[in-house]
Amino acid sequence: MEEKNSFSFLELEAYPWLLTEPIRSEKLRGNVIVLYAFQMLCPSCILHGSPFAQKIHQTFADKGVKVIGIHTVFEHHNVMGPDALETYLAEFRYSFPVVIDKHNSPHPIPDVMRRLELQGTPSFLLFDKAGNLRSHYFGPVDPLSFGYEIGKLIAE
Amino acid sequence: MEEKNSFSFLELEAYPWLLTEPIRSEKLRGNVIVLYAFQMLCPSCILHGSPFAQKIHQTFADKGVKVIGIHTVFEHHNVMGPDALETYLAEFRYSFPVVIDKHNSPHPIPDVMRRLELQGTPSFLLFDKAGNLRSHYFGPVDPLSFGYEIGKLIAE
Amino acid sequence: MEEKNSFSFLELEAYPWLLTEPIRSEKLRGNVIVLYAFQMLCPSCILHGSPFAQKIHQTFADKGVKVIGIHTVFEHHNVMGPDALETYLAEFRYSFPVVIDKHNSPHPIPDVMRRLELQGTPSFLLFDKAGNLRSHYFGPVDPLSFGYEIGKLIAE
Amino acid sequence: MEEKNSFSFLELEAYPWLLTEPIRSEKLRGNVIVLYAFQMLCPSCILHGSPFAQKIHQTFADKGVKVIGIHTVFEHHNVMGPDALETYLAEFRYSFPVVIDKHNSPHPIPDVMRRLELQGTPSFLLFDKAGNLRSHYFGPVDPLSFGYEIGKLIAE
Repeated sequence: MEEKNSFSFLELEAYPWLLTEPIRSEKLRGNVIVLYAFQMLCPSCILHGSPFAQKIHQTFADKGVKVIGIHTVFEHHNVMGPDALETYLAEFRYSFPVVIDKHNSPHPIPDVMRRLELQGTPSFLLFDKAGNLRSHYFGPVDPLSFGYEIGKLIAE
Repeated sequence: MEEKNSFSFLELEAYPWLLTEPIRSEKLRGNVIVLYAFQMLCPSCILHGSPFAQKIHQTFADKGVKVIGIHTVFEHHNVMGPDALETYLAEFRYSFPVVIDKHNSPHPIPDVMRRLELQGTPSFLLFDKAGNLRSHYFGPVDPLSFGYEIGKLIAE
Repeated sequence: MEEKNSFSFLELEAYPWLLTEPIRSEKLRGNVIVLYAFQMLCPSCILHGSPFAQKIHQTFADKGVKVIGIHTVFEHHNVMGPDALETYLAEFRYSFPVVIDKHNSPHPIPDVMRRLELQGTPSFLLFDKAGNLRSHYFGPVDPLSFGYEIGKLIAE
Repeated sequence: MEEKNSFSFLELEAYPWLLTEPIRSEKLRGNVIVLYAFQMLCPSCILHGSPFAQKIHQTFADKGVKVIGIHTVFEHHNVMGPDALETYLAEFRYSFPVVIDKHNSPHPIPDVMRRLELQGTPSFLLFDKAGNLRSHYFGPVDPLSFGYEIGKLIAE
């Protein structure tokens, strides 16, 4: 039986990572985690989500906040494979780490996306230092409000 | 003798307020305070500062964060009087409370501006729940970082 | 009897000008004229109209296109006098010439504004090389379309 | 021998088209043509070029101006094939017609791109009603200036 709350960052070590070594779970422990779920050809991801993920990554690099991009492809699979994704990330000079969500046939919706019950892309999920999901945004995110949420979690 | 640290919100009760009753000090107690120092005809105030002050005001209205605008005129005094200020605030539909900084002749720099050692306008000052100045920004402010600062102070 | 079509740039020589000598009518002859009607404290003028007037002024400075700003105050007269206007133009570093529309008591609507039947501010009016009004925009203007209109008039 | 000036829209009939029937040369005759050269994963194309091409297409649809996108892939060929391009155009709801530039092995630079001596993507080329190249922009384009160029060519 799958459960929504069964997701743990520990599992992501076993997924394919781009532009980075797999992030070891011990490096995430004690950090506030921003999980950015996207598809490289989704317009709102291209225009809003990915630049904002990069901005968070750069703003809080040394403040105990880790951004992880997760490529959750649920449509147009043939043109959003790892090669295309790598080109996209390199062309835009993105430097946040990216992991690729797994497909378990015959589900069109990939694994982590399904278990976290994401409504689509872009989604931003905020986890506290203990790994608990605390906020979940779908669509464009307001920087002032999101910064506030991060600040509160950092202070815990 | 005037000292930088002598500023208290308590004093502002005695200043002229626009668009609002004077804010009583007891209504501020226990809130995080954002003090927005501006001049109505300063381009960076018009384009960045005032819209951002209004955004903070609306975003955190019910979250223990109070925005106070302070009109700190240090140049072109003849065209930035209370009547002009009132027209400006009304035309842009701003709803955060605004107090007018005092001039003690012969200083061109008004009172609160001088005591807080502001470098110019726009300035954003962030005070914690105990009334202590914790952050001080001059010029355009990054919403993500400013939200983060507010979130940390709220969590204290 | 006043008529809509009675307006001529020739008359503007007699109006007060800011930041410039009065523009002599012979310097306008043969040029495409962009007449920008504004009020300095109108939000859409501040945010859209004036920056766009300046952009037109700079883009076509040597191409036979003249921008003339006309300050058509029809409300809040006491805070939008010549001193306030001059501060506004200087603070924003605007360099297009500005003339001040006349008030004939008891009309609240100033002279040129009334005769050109402007609906409000900002308005952009486009006159061909012969001085005929050819296009009339009220509110924010699309740069691509406006550039196209100018290009067609220049080619006549 | 290939020559820069040998390019004619007539040839494009033989190229693969997306989202549209091949544009017949007789439908282009007498129109001002905007040729937009792009690569779907080039950031400046995604952020500036393609939205601007669509804007031109919509603004001048009934005014004798035709926009033609040409996909001139000169890098990352494996992830910018016709399937990926079709997904990109559909996701962003672009409706201007797009033709795919040809590769003649072993040239990495495709055919039309080479003959028109494009410096990269995005490029906007403006052809008059007789099919002559009149303006050539590389990188982001200013809408006011580009509208002006179009207006002058339409008036010829």
